Amino acid sequence: MNLSDQYILVRERTESICRPLETEDYVVQPIVDVSPPKWHLGHTSWFFETFILKPHVEGYTEFNPDYNFVFNSYYESVGARVIRTDRGNLSRPTVADVYRYRAHVDEAMRNFLKDEQMSVNLHELVVLGFNHEEQHQELLCTDIKYILGHNPLFPAYGKSIYGPGYSGRNDGKTGRLRVIEWVSNPGGVAEIGHDGKGFCFDNELNRHRVYLQPYAIAPGLVTNKEYLEFIEAGGYEDFCYWHSEGWDWVNKNKVKAPLYWYHFDDAGEAPDADAPGEWMYYSWQGLQLIEPNDPVCHVSYYEAAAYASWKGARLPTEAEWEVASPELDWGKRWEWTESAYLPYPGFVKAPGAIGEYNGKFMISQMVLRGASEVTPPGHSRPTYRNFFHPSARWQFTGIRLAR
Amino acid sequence: MNLSDQYILVRERTESICRPLETEDYVVQPIVDVSPPKWHLGHTSWFFETFILKPHVEGYTEFNPDYNFVFNSYYESVGARVIRTDRGNLSRPTVADVYRYRAHVDEAMRNFLKDEQMSVNLHELVVLGFNHEEQHQELLCTDIKYILGHNPLFPAYGKSIYGPGYSGRNDGKTGRLRVIEWVSNPGGVAEIGHDGKGFCFDNELNRHRVYLQPYAIAPGLVTNKEYLEFIEAGGYEDFCYWHSEGWDWVNKNKVKAPLYWYHFDDAGEAPDADAPGEWMYYSWQGLQLIEPNDPVCHVSYYEAAAYASWKGARLPTEAEWEVASPELDWGKRWEWTESAYLPYPGFVKAPGAIGEYNGKFMISQMVLRGASEVTPPGHSRPTYRNFFHPSARWQFTGIRLAR
Amino acid sequence: MNLSDQYILVRERTESICRPLETEDYVVQPIVDVSPPKWHLGHTSWFFETFILKPHVEGYTEFNPDYNFVFNSYYESVGARVIRTDRGNLSRPTVADVYRYRAHVDEAMRNFLKDEQMSVNLHELVVLGFNHEEQHQELLCTDIKYILGHNPLFPAYGKSIYGPGYSGRNDGKTGRLRVIEWVSNPGGVAEIGHDGKGFCFDNELNRHRVYLQPYAIAPGLVTNKEYLEFIEAGGYEDFCYWHSEGWDWVNKNKVKAPLYWYHFDDAGEAPDADAPGEWMYYSWQGLQLIEPNDPVCHVSYYEAAAYASWKGARLPTEAEWEVASPELDWGKRWEWTESAYLPYPGFVKAPGAIGEYNGKFMISQMVLRGASEVTPPGHSRPTYRNFFHPSARWQFTGIRLAR
Amino acid sequence: MNLSDQYILVRERTESICRPLETEDYVVQPIVDVSPPKWHLGHTSWFFETFILKPHVEGYTEFNPDYNFVFNSYYESVGARVIRTDRGNLSRPTVADVYRYRAHVDEAMRNFLKDEQMSVNLHELVVLGFNHEEQHQELLCTDIKYILGHNPLFPAYGKSIYGPGYSGRNDGKTGRLRVIEWVSNPGGVAEIGHDGKGFCFDNELNRHRVYLQPYAIAPGLVTNKEYLEFIEAGGYEDFCYWHSEGWDWVNKNKVKAPLYWYHFDDAGEAPDADAPGEWMYYSWQGLQLIEPNDPVCHVSYYEAAAYASWKGARLPTEAEWEVASPELDWGKRWEWTESAYLPYPGFVKAPGAIGEYNGKFMISQMVLRGASEVTPPGHSRPTYRNFFHPSARWQFTGIRLAR
Repeated sequence: MNLSDQYILVRERTESICRPLETEDYVVQPIVDVSPPKWHLGHTSWFFETFILKPHVEGYTEFNPDYNFVFNSYYESVGARVIRTDRGNLSRPTVADVYRYRAHVDEAMRNFLKDEQMSVNLHELVVLGFNHEEQHQELLCTDIKYILGHNPLFPAYGKSIYGPGYSGRNDGKTGRLRVIEWVSNPGGVAEIGHDGKGFCFDNELNRHRVYLQPYAIAPGLVTNKEYLEFIEAGGYEDFCYWHSEGWDWVNKNKVKAPLYWYHFDDAGEAPDADAPGEWMYYSWQGLQLIEPNDPVCHVSYYEAAAYASWKGARLPTEAEWEVASPELDWGKRWEWTESAYLPYPGFVKAPGAIGEYNGKFMISQMVLRGASEVTPPGHSRPTYRNFFHPSARWQFTGIRLAR
Repeated sequence: MNLSDQYILVRERTESICRPLETEDYVVQPIVDVSPPKWHLGHTSWFFETFILKPHVEGYTEFNPDYNFVFNSYYESVGARVIRTDRGNLSRPTVADVYRYRAHVDEAMRNFLKDEQMSVNLHELVVLGFNHEEQHQELLCTDIKYILGHNPLFPAYGKSIYGPGYSGRNDGKTGRLRVIEWVSNPGGVAEIGHDGKGFCFDNELNRHRVYLQPYAIAPGLVTNKEYLEFIEAGGYEDFCYWHSEGWDWVNKNKVKAPLYWYHFDDAGEAPDADAPGEWMYYSWQGLQLIEPNDPVCHVSYYEAAAYASWKGARLPTEAEWEVASPELDWGKRWEWTESAYLPYPGFVKAPGAIGEYNGKFMISQMVLRGASEVTPPGHSRPTYRNFFHPSARWQFTGIRLAR
Repeated sequence: MNLSDQYILVRERTESICRPLETEDYVVQPIVDVSPPKWHLGHTSWFFETFILKPHVEGYTEFNPDYNFVFNSYYESVGARVIRTDRGNLSRPTVADVYRYRAHVDEAMRNFLKDEQMSVNLHELVVLGFNHEEQHQELLCTDIKYILGHNPLFPAYGKSIYGPGYSGRNDGKTGRLRVIEWVSNPGGVAEIGHDGKGFCFDNELNRHRVYLQPYAIAPGLVTNKEYLEFIEAGGYEDFCYWHSEGWDWVNKNKVKAPLYWYHFDDAGEAPDADAPGEWMYYSWQGLQLIEPNDPVCHVSYYEAAAYASWKGARLPTEAEWEVASPELDWGKRWEWTESAYLPYPGFVKAPGAIGEYNGKFMISQMVLRGASEVTPPGHSRPTYRNFFHPSARWQFTGIRLAR
Repeated sequence: MNLSDQYILVRERTESICRPLETEDYVVQPIVDVSPPKWHLGHTSWFFETFILKPHVEGYTEFNPDYNFVFNSYYESVGARVIRTDRGNLSRPTVADVYRYRAHVDEAMRNFLKDEQMSVNLHELVVLGFNHEEQHQELLCTDIKYILGHNPLFPAYGKSIYGPGYSGRNDGKTGRLRVIEWVSNPGGVAEIGHDGKGFCFDNELNRHRVYLQPYAIAPGLVTNKEYLEFIEAGGYEDFCYWHSEGWDWVNKNKVKAPLYWYHFDDAGEAPDADAPGEWMYYSWQGLQLIEPNDPVCHVSYYEAAAYASWKGARLPTEAEWEVASPELDWGKRWEWTESAYLPYPGFVKAPGAIGEYNGKFMISQMVLRGASEVTPPGHSRPTYRNFFHPSARWQFTGIRLAR
C-alpha cells in the first residue's frame, strides 16, 4: 500500500474508535493518566503538522497557532504547553473544531504524500507518525474505557470497526487449551531486539546478545478464576506477597481487586468490595459478571508480582519472554515483566524533538511485552517494548508466570 | 404573577444563560469552586424533584434514580453523592439528557402548580426553589466566565437575554458621579435584618438591633484606576498591608493583580504579569483593555482588606453597610465586608434537609453585601447576606471603603 | 514591684516551667502548631534583644547574629526566619546555648531596667515584653503536653512551681456547685473592651458599646461526663450537629473524642477508639481514667458548636460572655465563643514591627474567652481576647453553653 | 577474631561515630530519609534483641516491651511500629535511655556469644546482625551530615575514630593519577554475583553468567571541577540532558548544584545559588570552599545521568562495573549505575521476617556500586549491591562514566 493510502487508513481508524462517543465523552479527564479523546485527536494531527507539514511543506498555513500550546504533549523542544492535569479543563477547541483541524491537516498531508521523491529520513518520519497515531489509538481505547467505566451510570461503549469491541486477530486465540503448564528453555546465549528491517521504535534497537539462565514460562495467561482464588485466599491482606512500595499502594488506595471490578450490595446501589454479592466487571458492553476463563485484566505490576509470589513463581524477564514468544499464547494482554525499562546496549537518542520520543522515559518504569485486545495490528511484534509505572492499571495489563 | 408563571420564567432564565454555550462548555470543572454548567442545570431540577415532587406529588415517576447520586450538592440527609471535585469528570448524563430531565421535571411541576389549595409550608418551599434556582443562575454566570476566561483561546461568551452580557437595572448606575467622598453616620442603636415580609433566606432573620459607632462610608466602589495605583505602588510586594494569611496566599499563588487581569508581552503569547505591556481583562466579549472607571472586580477579601489598609481606611461591617445602603451606589459588585458570616441572634435551622441550606456554612467565611452585574433582579435587597471564603475571587466581588 | 523585679520574676517563671524536662523534650515539634520548648526560650529572649536592647541600649553586643534567623517568629519587618515547620529540625543551638543566650539577655536587661528615666513608650514596650513572655509560658505548657502526651511511652511531666501541674488560683473553683443552670441577661446597650487603664493588648481596645439581645448563659462549663453522653449518643457520627467544615474535619481526621482521650484494648497496646475498654486521658501525671466532673478539655470549635447544637443550645458571643462574666465560674478553660476574631471599632495597628502583634491575624479565627489552668495569673481578665483556628485542640479549650 | 570480640568491635564502632554529637543532635529528623541518630542506636539493638535474644535465649528479659513499637523499622512480621515520618517527633526514650538499652542488649549478647555450640543458622543470623549494624553505621554518618549540614549555624562535626572524619583505607587512593581515560573490555560471557563463600547479603546471590557487549569504562570518578563545568555550561537549565522525571525533579526542587553546595552573597547571609560568590561545601569540618579534585559527591541518579549525557557518555551497568572493578579506582563514592535494582536469577527470599531484608525493595530503585568514605571496611566488596531511589542525594554518591 502506498504511503497516502496508509495515511488515510490510519487516520480513519482513529476516528472510527471515537464514533460511538457522545460529544461530552471527548472532553473529560478523570485521572491524570487519562487524556480527553479530543486531545488525542488533536495531538496526533499536531504531530504531523509540527514535524512534517511546517518544516517540510512550503506555503503550508498553520490551522491555528494557539493549537501548538494546546496539543503539544511533552516535547520540550517545541515550546510551552498546557500542563497535563489541565487537559480536561479545556472546553475549547470544541470537538467540531478538532475534527476541522484534522481535516485541514489531512488535506495537506494527502497532497504532500503524493510526492514520490521523498527522502529516506522524511519517509521514516512519516512512518513514525503512523505508528505514533496507532499508539494513541490504543490510548484512546484505554482512556475511553476509563471515562465510561468510572461514570456512575456505567454507560456501554458499543461496537467499533476497530478498537474497543473490535474482534480482531487475537480473539481466535482465547479458547486455546493450555495442555501444558510450563514451556522450558535451557538458557544460554540468545539474541533479542529488533533487527532494524521494517519499522520499529528506537527503544527496540539494537538486536543484541543476552545470557539466559535455564527457565520455564507458562504458555497461557493467568485467568480471572485463578486470580479470584488469590483474592479469596486473602492475598490483598497479607504483606508477605508484596513489594514494600506495593503494600503501601494497596493500603493507601484501599485496593481489593483489579480495576473495573465492582461488588454491589443487594440494593444495587453503592459499589463496595466488602458487600456480599458477586463480582461485576465493567466491559465495553457495560457491567457484567466476571468471565472466569478470560485472562485477568487491569492489574498493576504490584498485583502481578504479588500474585506470582503467592503462586511460588515469578514474572518473566523481557528477554525470557521474547525468546520464548513463539511458543506462547500472547496478544490478549500487555504482560508485566520483571525487567525495568532501560536502554538496550548501544541505544542512541535521535537528534532534536524526535529524540524525546522514548529515551527520556527510561527510568522508574517496568517493561510490558505482548499486545492487548485494543492494540493496533501492526504493534503486535515480539520485540515491542511497552512501559508503564508499576502502579498503572488502566491499560489492558495481565499476568504470565515464570520460574 | 401566579406561581406557575413564575416557575416558567425562572426556569427559562436559567436556560437562557446557557444558550450561547457549546456542548463542551457544559462539561468541565477547571477548579473545585466551579461546577460544570450541566451540573447546575441538573441540580436545580433535582431540587424540585427531591423536595417537591417526590414527597408531595402522588404517582410522580422519578426520571432516573441514579441522578440523586449525580445531582445532590451537599445535602447529607438525602444520601450519597458525587464528591465535588469529581463533577467535572462525568461525561454522562449528556447535556441533552439533562435538558430532558429538566423537561420531565418542568412538566410535573407545571401540573403540580395548577393546584390552588397548596399549604403555606409547601408554597414557601416552592418559592425557596425559585430563589435557589436564581442563586444558581448567578453561579452559572461566574462559573461560565471562569471556564471561558481560563481557556488559552479566550473565547467570547456573547450576549444573553439575562445573565452574562445582560444590561439590566444596575447598568444605569455605572456613570453616577461620586460628588461626595464619604457618607457619614452618627452611630447609635439601629436595626438590621429582614422583617420577614416577603421571601428571604433564613440567614437574614431575625430583624434585630445593633449598636453602631459613628462611621463614614464611601458612596461609590473602588475603580480599576484606583486599584491600579495600589498595584503600581507595590501593594502586592509589601506585607505590611496584608493579613498574615493573605500574605501567604499572595506568595503561594504568586498573585499580582485581580483575577482575569493579564499582562502580555509583545509577541502576545505567554501571559506574564512581569512583562511590559498594558493590562488586559477577560470580559464577556473576550480580552480587552482595562476600563479605568469600572469598579474593580474579582478580588479576594485579602486584596480588599489590603487595599483598604493601603488607603488608611477599612472595609465596612455588614451592619454599617445595611444601615447606609439607601445612600450608596450599589448593585455592581458583591462587596466584601469586615463581618464574618455568623448566625443572627435567634437564628434557627429549619428541620430536615432544608435546614442544611445555610446554617452549616456559618464558619470561616466573610459576608458580602450588595449584588453584582449577574445577580438576578430579585436578589438585590439590602438585607441579603452573601458569603464566601476570604480567598474566593471568581465571584463578581469588589471593594467599598469605610472609616 | 519595680520593673527589674518583675522582669526577673517573669523570666524565672518561664524556666521553671521547663525544669522537669529532659534535654530531648526541648527539641521536637510533632505538629506545626507546637514549637520546641527551646525555641520558646530563645524567642522570648530574642524579643527583648530585638525590640529593647538593640535599638535602645548603646554598646549592647548581640549574642549571636544568626539567632535572629533562628528565633524570629513571624515579624516580617525584622528579616528572614526559619520557616515554622522547620523549627523541630534544628538540633543547634543546643539547649545549653539557649540558656546562655537567656543569661546574656537577662544581664543586659537587668542593667537597662535600673534606669529610672525610661520614656513612657519604652516602659510600655518592656511591659509588652513581659506579657509576650507570659503568653509563651502558656504555649510552653500546651506544647510540652503535646510532646509528652503523643509519645508512645506517655511519660509524666510531674510538678512545676508555676505552669503545668501547678495548682493555682483557679483550682479552688473546680468544685463550685452549679446550683442554677442559666444566668439570664435582659439585653440592651452594654459596654465591652478594655478601658486602657493598666496593661492590655491592642486587640482589647477600644471600650465600646454593643447591643445585646436578651440571653441566658450557663454559669459552669460542660463536664467530661456531659460530653461523654454526646459521644455515646453518636454525636460524632451524625452530621446534623456539625458545621459542614467541621464534619469534613471529623471524617478526614477520624475524630472520635477530644484530644488526649485514648481507648486501649485488653492487651493495653494499640490505642484504638473502637476497642472495648474505658476512656483514658493523658494528664500531667501520665495516663489516667477520665475524671467525670472536670470540665471537658481540648476540644475544637467544631466540637464545641456540635455539642451545643446537640443540646439545643449555642455558644455565647464574646460580648455576651464579657457582660455576664462577673456571674460565671470561669478560668479553668479557654471557652470557644460564637464570635469571629475581628478588630474592635477604632482598632489601629501600632507602627513598625510591634504592629504585627495582633492585627494581621484578624481573619479566619474564633475568639476564646476566659483563661485556663495554665494561663499566667495576669492574663485572667474579662476583656482578654484569645483566638485560634476552629480546628485547634492542643490549647486547654472548653465549652460553655448559651441560648 | 571470635564472634564475641567481633560483636564488641562492631557495637563500639557505632557509638564511636556518635561520640562528637550533642544530645540534641540525636533527636531530629529534618527529612523523611534521615533517621534520628538515637533511633539508629536503638534499632540496631532491637535487631539483636528481636531476632537473637528473644527467640533463642531462655530467660532473656526484654528491656522495655514498648521499644518494639519505637524501634522496628519496616518489619511487618514483627508488629506495629512508629511511622517513619514520626521518628523525629519522639523525645523519649532519651539518649541516656537508649544507651542503657544498648548496654542491656550487649550484656545479654556477650553472654550468649560465649556459647561455642551455636547452630550454623544462628551463626549466620549473628553475622547478619553485624552487617546490619554496619549498614546503619553508614546511615548514621549520612544522617548526621544532613542534620548538621542543614542547620543554619553549620556546626562542624569534628573527628571520629571511625566513620565521619575518619581517614581510612580509601583515602590513599584520592591522588592516584588518571593516566588513562578509559579501560576497555571486549565483552562476551562473564560471571557476576557472590560465590557464597563468606558473608554476603541475599541480594548478591547467586553468582551467574551475563553477556556483556564490548564497552569502555573510566578508571576514575568525575571530579568537582569537571562537574562545575556542567553547571557553568547551563546543564541544569537544559532539559535535553535529563530524563523527563529528572527534569521535573530539578524544576520542582529548584536544584542548581549537588546537595551541600551553597552560594553566599557578600553579606554572607542568605544562601542563594544565584548570588555572586564562590561555591561553598558543607564538610565534616563545616563550610569550606569546593575542593576541585575531589570526586563530586551527593548527586542524584538524575544528575549523574544528565552529566553523562552532557559528556556524550552513559553510566555503566552493574555487571560492567563488577567485571571491570579490578581495574578501577573505587571506594570513595557510591556510584550510580544504569541498572535497576531487581532480583538476580534464582533469588529467593529467606522465610520469616529476615526475608523482608532486601527482596521487598526490589522495585523503583537503582543499583549503586563501590563504597564511600563512610562505608565500614567490610562492606567494600565488588559484589555489593547498594540501592536507592533515583532522587536520593544524602548518601555519598558519585559518578563514573562508561560508553
